[in-house]
Amino acid sequence: MDRNSDAPMQRALDQARLAAGRGEVPVGAVVLGPDGALLAEAGNRVEADRDASAHAELLAMRAAARRLGTPRLLGCTLVVTLEPCPMCAAAISHFRVGRVMFGAYDPKGGGVEHGPRLFAQPSCLHRPETVGGVREREAAALLRGFFAALRG
Amino acid sequence: MDRNSDAPMQRALDQARLAAGRGEVPVGAVVLGPDGALLAEAGNRVEADRDASAHAELLAMRAAARRLGTPRLLGCTLVVTLEPCPMCAAAISHFRVGRVMFGAYDPKGGGVEHGPRLFAQPSCLHRPETVGGVREREAAALLRGFFAALRG
Repeated sequence: MDRNSDAPMQRALDQARLAAGRGEVPVGAVVLGPDGALLAEAGNRVEADRDASAHAELLAMRAAARRLGTPRLLGCTLVVTLEPCPMCAAAISHFRVGRVMFGAYDPKGGGVEHGPRLFAQPSCLHRPETVGGVREREAAALLRGFFAALRG
Repeated sequence: MDRNSDAPMQRALDQARLAAGRGEVPVGAVVLGPDGALLAEAGNRVEADRDASAHAELLAMRAAARRLGTPRLLGCTLVVTLEPCPMCAAAISHFRVGRVMFGAYDPKGGGVEHGPRLFAQPSCLHRPETVGGVREREAAALLRGFFAALRG
């Protein structure tokens, strides 16, 4: 899968839609290997797994690392529909992900371009290359639709 | 288990020693329910599980939530031998943990009293009560011994 093509974010958006169908906050993520191979994909599973840490990107990184047989995702690319929260941003550093591409910006809950801006912290030991705003409107519309439906 | 007694930190230190025996960074954690019942205990398993996010506190919170059948640990206490990193601190907020008691301070990697100080961020939605430095010397000595042995 060409990491610079539209395909990885399309797959992440598909995972976000599947998450919405399960009643989860619609966020999806995929991890590509250094060669562009699809290593893992996941949507939010907080309610399904009774796990407040079961965010799409954390699940996808854990699955990719299991598949590679190592706790480090060197040279890998994480593609996620929403700006990662501080938990996921810090996990991205722990996993040594090479590149992060995200969709919608998250002024309230984001931890990359907002809030603690984790990769800009002096104590951050690994900073991935970061690209934000990829198919931003589509990812944001999914989230808006979900929360509007919740408010009924 | 009295959450104000020495017993929970003793169990967390035991988990840290077991982790060291597996070749993991010696950090251990336990989660107590609102009534003081021991819900879960874990040590670091980053290498064993090939999972860079498998920190003691994240594993213990996930196990406690599975046991309670809900993604929220309302009124629960997390006891951990080292100041939580930014990933674990943010996860503590996501899990809505009521109280955190930690051992050694971590000026380089900590995210509660150091670095991004996550609970002090304006965007932090849930701030637990926090107590640091509980049996600090013992927890710090474990870590020092581990890293000294690594350096040979």
